[in-house]
Amino acid sequence: MKTKSFSDMQCSIARTLEHVGSWWSLLIIRDVMMGAHRFKHFEKSLGIAKNTLTTRLAQLVEGGILEKVPAADGSAFDEYVLTERGRELAPVMIALSQWGDKWVAHEDGPSTEIIDGTTGKRLPRVWPRRENGEMMPLSEVSMRKADHAPPKNWAKEQE
Amino acid sequence: MKTKSFSDMQCSIARTLEHVGSWWSLLIIRDVMMGAHRFKHFEKSLGIAKNTLTTRLAQLVEGGILEKVPAADGSAFDEYVLTERGRELAPVMIALSQWGDKWVAHEDGPSTEIIDGTTGKRLPRVWPRRENGEMMPLSEVSMRKADHAPPKNWAKEQE
Repeated sequence: MKTKSFSDMQCSIARTLEHVGSWWSLLIIRDVMMGAHRFKHFEKSLGIAKNTLTTRLAQLVEGGILEKVPAADGSAFDEYVLTERGRELAPVMIALSQWGDKWVAHEDGPSTEIIDGTTGKRLPRVWPRRENGEMMPLSEVSMRKADHAPPKNWAKEQE
Repeated sequence: MKTKSFSDMQCSIARTLEHVGSWWSLLIIRDVMMGAHRFKHFEKSLGIAKNTLTTRLAQLVEGGILEKVPAADGSAFDEYVLTERGRELAPVMIALSQWGDKWVAHEDGPSTEIIDGTTGKRLPRVWPRRENGEMMPLSEVSMRKADHAPPKNWAKEQE
């Protein structure tokens, strides 16, 4: 259970986590990216309690990541589809998936492939790149406090 | 609270989430990437209970994402640094940060900048790219079941 809200934090990582909601929410987003669109599909895929799933779906809709639309086949069921901001979580999902493939893959191999639909080939790693598209060594990437942001409250002591 | 383990799932996204541990763990990793290395720094930065932080740090060490090393300044404090697999979470962290900058930024602007250390310029978005480094439209990226993996248990009904 989250014991504190991240939403008042200025950091975009914390704000994204708050906005997305939970680990479960990421798995729902994964399922939508892989073609699941109905409550029943998520329930089967994830094996979670109906009330938990209801809460997570409502949060994703409220956060503008999913939207509810009438069923594509004209039946009475609502369907959940990604909004633009939901689709733009793809780099996060791909990076999580590729990290898992490399470091903690299941003994039977990963269950999911991420493919360039124009070539059918496996997608190169989502990775920091230079303006010209070249992959960078991670040692050349710097995460730092923005000039206008208050100093990290541990930084003074560290000096 | 997580109600179910993701570790028996075959999906690399679920396995990564299980291995990383929690939202808090991602914020600890962020802090290490930004230069925090000691228990006290994380405690100040995150404002969480000591016992929660202790558990999260132990889990990250056990998962091979952080390692404990003697203090760089020769003092008695342990320090936490990223292992190679920990450093390779950078694409996940950057993607979360860039998504937040775009979609849910704080009214005062993001607190963190991600910089190409060789040019001092802001890093281009971490994004799916073709082999030649060109950014792809998300509509051309396909996440699909690997051939050897069992069918999604909702897929049959969907046909």
